[in-house]
Amino acid sequence: MQAAIIRDKQFWIEDIPTPQPGPGQVLVKVLSCGICGSDIHLFNQGPDLVAKAAAAGAPIDDIGTDMVLGHEFVGEIVSFGPETTEALAVGDRVTSVPFLMKDGVVIPIGASKATTGAYAQYLLLTEAALVLVPESMSNDAAALAEPLAIGVHAVAKANAVSTDAALVIGCGPIGLATVAALRMRGVTQIIAADYSNRRRQLAEQMGASRVVNPAEENPYEALQSITATDNIIFECVGLKGLIHEIIVGAPQGSRVVIAGICMEEDLFMPMLAVSKELCLQFVTYYTPEEFAESLQALAEERFNWRPWITGRVNLRGVSDAFEALKDPEQHAKILIEPWS
Amino acid sequence: MQAAIIRDKQFWIEDIPTPQPGPGQVLVKVLSCGICGSDIHLFNQGPDLVAKAAAAGAPIDDIGTDMVLGHEFVGEIVSFGPETTEALAVGDRVTSVPFLMKDGVVIPIGASKATTGAYAQYLLLTEAALVLVPESMSNDAAALAEPLAIGVHAVAKANAVSTDAALVIGCGPIGLATVAALRMRGVTQIIAADYSNRRRQLAEQMGASRVVNPAEENPYEALQSITATDNIIFECVGLKGLIHEIIVGAPQGSRVVIAGICMEEDLFMPMLAVSKELCLQFVTYYTPEEFAESLQALAEERFNWRPWITGRVNLRGVSDAFEALKDPEQHAKILIEPWS
Repeated sequence: MQAAIIRDKQFWIEDIPTPQPGPGQVLVKVLSCGICGSDIHLFNQGPDLVAKAAAAGAPIDDIGTDMVLGHEFVGEIVSFGPETTEALAVGDRVTSVPFLMKDGVVIPIGASKATTGAYAQYLLLTEAALVLVPESMSNDAAALAEPLAIGVHAVAKANAVSTDAALVIGCGPIGLATVAALRMRGVTQIIAADYSNRRRQLAEQMGASRVVNPAEENPYEALQSITATDNIIFECVGLKGLIHEIIVGAPQGSRVVIAGICMEEDLFMPMLAVSKELCLQFVTYYTPEEFAESLQALAEERFNWRPWITGRVNLRGVSDAFEALKDPEQHAKILIEPWS
Repeated sequence: MQAAIIRDKQFWIEDIPTPQPGPGQVLVKVLSCGICGSDIHLFNQGPDLVAKAAAAGAPIDDIGTDMVLGHEFVGEIVSFGPETTEALAVGDRVTSVPFLMKDGVVIPIGASKATTGAYAQYLLLTEAALVLVPESMSNDAAALAEPLAIGVHAVAKANAVSTDAALVIGCGPIGLATVAALRMRGVTQIIAADYSNRRRQLAEQMGASRVVNPAEENPYEALQSITATDNIIFECVGLKGLIHEIIVGAPQGSRVVIAGICMEEDLFMPMLAVSKELCLQFVTYYTPEEFAESLQALAEERFNWRPWITGRVNLRGVSDAFEALKDPEQHAKILIEPWS
């Protein structure tokens, strides 16, 4: 099969053996796969992480060269391995949380060398984790279930209720998913903040009630001007210094959900957070139920997800897509279609 | 009246005019007042804060020289000001949250020059905030209502349930109050950690199921070894670096309640907190209901509060008491009795 393989900080489109489903596994033909911000992190910083870990005497075997990314996928069942129930049929369209059970170990699909991700023509999945994609649902919508689940989880961990006011800092894919998930939960007062015009426009299209350019207006003052039961702030950027900025700006008693991933050491003032009785809830991933809920919401067209998809490439286009995603004015989510 | 006045980083016992109750206020004879850790902070760092603020062009008028501390008090009603209901009677023993309404402004009692605190023979209180002390209750127990309320609030903000396991870091007054409040809420698995033998002993006497000396045993591993619904960690120290240590040590999904007050900038690794989905709840003070609940719990002897009180002085002994409180092997809570 064809796959986009990472080697020497480049993508190589190569023929590699199609994987064979083991016990409890199914082989799936990949129809579409989204490019995630964490893919770009892994592509750019993976080699450094591997080198640093090796230098520190704790080598990482799991990521690095010859890895195949891709964890936001939709596919079609091709064949079943041993010890499967075959409750679904060959040809059924499916998706799943990106984890593969292999020899009793859970492997993160698209973030490990132990299995290939969905930047390839075929993929192994765990039968027990499969979710059937409704017939009326497009591949585009199904591929968004995984990134949407990140937002659904962040909003669930915030215990958001419809009378809350939300401020979403950063309108990249996680911020946009959070805006959509807030809408799904009935929250109507959603301020979305981003320096990019295009990203603010996308946030509005996906359900933000108001958008703010932080270069022109203080997002925290915008939040304070709203009457609400509680204030919830979502950090969807992951830049050093932003948590401190939020602590300074947050209204008294706010809940702050940290969905962005800052990989560096960061500074903050505990005393300020104490005096405001802030709650900082750090979040990652989602539950299988939240994943299924996200797929369902997309199937039911519960929000306008179409603007989220800004591009479409085949495997040879992955490299250019990674380059294009650097410009927030140009792109939000690019889908890879390995058979086109 | 006699009062212990702060001037030039010393206590001066002086005669000052007995305050006169204004509208809605009552005059109370102080029977007992605990020394709080924040009193020691204000005594030691107050002048620096005032100097720094003045140098920065934002002078603080509220704290500083000639201030009278004391916000953990019990007293006896002496007289009523105008516009009071006199629902209680002269001679009734009372306590209250440490806030005085004066000309429509809320003044923190014992932390402001706008009213004298309870390191004095008399005190002004707001009639509407008074809580009657049950007849059978000692002054000792009543004086502990305020510090206990800090723990009751911390535990309430953690939403602790009886099947949770708790780790209390630091067994100073806030840590001890937290241990007692956890017991009051039905939590039975309470690990208390402190380097001081005496403080660990106090924590056991007040309800800790296990004590740990961090010099000998990792408190986080002790927590991990317990089977519980959820893990809750209480930071009751306020030292720089401790929040990072907790993030490193905390089990996956822990709730962390920050009750300690670190006045400096602090470093942490957001990525670690993200990967564990930690929740950092910063807390301060308590509600009037939590204050009343604390007084009630002490009246009902719902835990063994007696070991908490380790000393007793009159106004002339305040200076020595502040010195003695530096040694955790010697003291936890010292009460001031201004009439003895």
